[in-house]
Amino acid sequence: MRSVGIVAEYNPFHNGHYFHLNQSKEVSESEVAIVAMSGNFLQRGEPAIVSKWTRTKMALLAGADIIVEIPYAFAVQKAEIFAFGSVYLLDALKCSSICFGSESGSIDPFFHTVELLKEQEEKYNQKIRFYIKQGVSYPKALALAYAELEKNKDSVDLSRPNNILGYHYISAADKLNSNMQFFTVKRNTAEHDDETIHDDQIASATSIRKLIKEEGNLNRIRPYVPESTFTEMDGYYHTYGHFHDWEDYWPYLQYRLATMGEAELNQMYDIEEGLPYRLQKAAQTAESFQSFMEMAKTKRYTWTRLQRICVHALTNTSRADIHSAGEAPGYIRLLGMSAKGREYLNKVKKDLSLPLVSTISSFPQDMLALDRKAALVYSQALKEPARKDLLSLEYAQPPIMAD
Amino acid sequence: MRSVGIVAEYNPFHNGHYFHLNQSKEVSESEVAIVAMSGNFLQRGEPAIVSKWTRTKMALLAGADIIVEIPYAFAVQKAEIFAFGSVYLLDALKCSSICFGSESGSIDPFFHTVELLKEQEEKYNQKIRFYIKQGVSYPKALALAYAELEKNKDSVDLSRPNNILGYHYISAADKLNSNMQFFTVKRNTAEHDDETIHDDQIASATSIRKLIKEEGNLNRIRPYVPESTFTEMDGYYHTYGHFHDWEDYWPYLQYRLATMGEAELNQMYDIEEGLPYRLQKAAQTAESFQSFMEMAKTKRYTWTRLQRICVHALTNTSRADIHSAGEAPGYIRLLGMSAKGREYLNKVKKDLSLPLVSTISSFPQDMLALDRKAALVYSQALKEPARKDLLSLEYAQPPIMAD
Repeated sequence: MRSVGIVAEYNPFHNGHYFHLNQSKEVSESEVAIVAMSGNFLQRGEPAIVSKWTRTKMALLAGADIIVEIPYAFAVQKAEIFAFGSVYLLDALKCSSICFGSESGSIDPFFHTVELLKEQEEKYNQKIRFYIKQGVSYPKALALAYAELEKNKDSVDLSRPNNILGYHYISAADKLNSNMQFFTVKRNTAEHDDETIHDDQIASATSIRKLIKEEGNLNRIRPYVPESTFTEMDGYYHTYGHFHDWEDYWPYLQYRLATMGEAELNQMYDIEEGLPYRLQKAAQTAESFQSFMEMAKTKRYTWTRLQRICVHALTNTSRADIHSAGEAPGYIRLLGMSAKGREYLNKVKKDLSLPLVSTISSFPQDMLALDRKAALVYSQALKEPARKDLLSLEYAQPPIMAD
Repeated sequence: MRSVGIVAEYNPFHNGHYFHLNQSKEVSESEVAIVAMSGNFLQRGEPAIVSKWTRTKMALLAGADIIVEIPYAFAVQKAEIFAFGSVYLLDALKCSSICFGSESGSIDPFFHTVELLKEQEEKYNQKIRFYIKQGVSYPKALALAYAELEKNKDSVDLSRPNNILGYHYISAADKLNSNMQFFTVKRNTAEHDDETIHDDQIASATSIRKLIKEEGNLNRIRPYVPESTFTEMDGYYHTYGHFHDWEDYWPYLQYRLATMGEAELNQMYDIEEGLPYRLQKAAQTAESFQSFMEMAKTKRYTWTRLQRICVHALTNTSRADIHSAGEAPGYIRLLGMSAKGREYLNKVKKDLSLPLVSTISSFPQDMLALDRKAALVYSQALKEPARKDLLSLEYAQPPIMAD
């Protein structure tokens, strides 16, 4: 039974995701599509617009077969760590292949790039350090350093977010000595973080969330999402009365920054010297998360890195917490599966290299504790009894079954 | 210039307070009334219904001459520490006397009680320990132990909250070798925490707050407060749109309990082994502060002690914070004064044993840092821009001047 792995956030699931899901099965000749999906908080340091359960349903209804959660310790991370955690999970799930979206749609340049950076690693790292010292952000330093390397073969443009992720997927599999094959599908969508819409059926998740926020209802997103996404989004709103947004968590972050000592804030994951004072000062006068971010940002920190730092401060995730969580995922948390997904899992069950976790209460583990805490924080955006109802799923929801 | 010290919370200032303020000046033959008042959070572990600035205005308009803030480290404390901090401040301000309310209105039994407990200290402490071991609350153990001591002279009933405070005022002055005289005035009001109203002009602060909460407006409190209180309360509501209540802070406490590790919670001030788990568990399912408290309370903790612990968790005040704040107030923070109050301060200024602080930004001190943090948290009950407006007073508001 051939299976293809997909790394996704589905925030929310849209036509571009649908296209990619189907193409992935096709090009990899797979019966089963396995998705490693982030949970409550996402790679770019944002809360998911709806719960992981609802996003799991969307994915199942659109044809995914197995959805597992990328642990918080890997989900809210820069591309390299995010990709490593995701690929590790898919490898542990015995995926035959991984298929990701890219600008060009051809896989060879990615392999060339992985080789190139291995060969010229020292030079590359030297150049990165040089640019970091000049005060530019980390992704910018990577792009500048990469541009200066000698390239004999086709290689990919590492200034594009999707290409960076693709590169890291292959690089992670290489480090893990994984046998997974790699495929890439040309992205039939706008840029990952594009806010405008260029096509009458395809819009980025960012622009879809923007439409929902601006319009205050779901009607405008109809052309860009499968009917099942529309129904699930609508159902979430009716059940919980709300779509999640950073602004919901802003009072908590503001309160948190107000009550933490500078030393305490300095212990938060990914924070660097000098930033605590800056964040705490901005929090006192900012009237919204947006205005806080505008006050706090500097040339050195990208917007997304600063957002991730804010998520870690919000969830009280320290460097020590991430350290003791471990260097690789320690479990596979199953969020949902189709009938075919279940058949697949039954077949590979005895070969899985990680425990399969479907209810969390009985699984005490530092890494899972971070997910549990993230779920507690995530639910605080909702009014009672919706908060309590959503939170109870974290402990009580068995994997969602489709078909 | 004779001065009388008063320890108060004025939450809000009512006719009973007015009566006590005037009686205090009269019986002590004082020209000047000096009030040591708690700030944002109160002795029984509650947020003040309106800001300390508005409560200062109420007191000034009703005839008080000087209002100083009891530091957080002494305000949100059991009677003994609360009384010690307050008396220390009034002594530092060179008060000639202190006048407090009591059930009987006669001062001698208080002195007899202080002597009695000094003479029989060892026996008293033994009995307290005995009852604590039996699992009763601390105040209950005090009352039971006290009842068993041998009494030759008139002594006070230490099961009544006002008597306990009065006893501790005198005991604190005794420890400080203070020359202040003591007076007591018979309370012409309901019990401190009485929720019902027995008189057509006198109601307790608790019942007044209850009326405001139930009615959603101020009309019903008119008979029980001076006109100036009514006007100030009304003004606060118009400026900030809200009266503060524990329920406003409940989402923050819930969030805080959700994100703290058990070890971290164990470091909070006044918390004891075993309580963290209980609090964190209750917070997950409670839908309000009231329901949380009902779930969390035990025979061993009084409601007020549990509330104080919650305030410390809310403000992230650890045992180490209270320890490093110091054993006695380190400054006198002036909130307001009348013309006569200013004249008094000018006279005693050079004899003050503590620095007089009127703007806080320039006064870095661990104890004051706790007050600053309390102000940050207190303001989180308000929507923007009210939050920001109120918070800015903490740094910018000069002492309020009356007449």
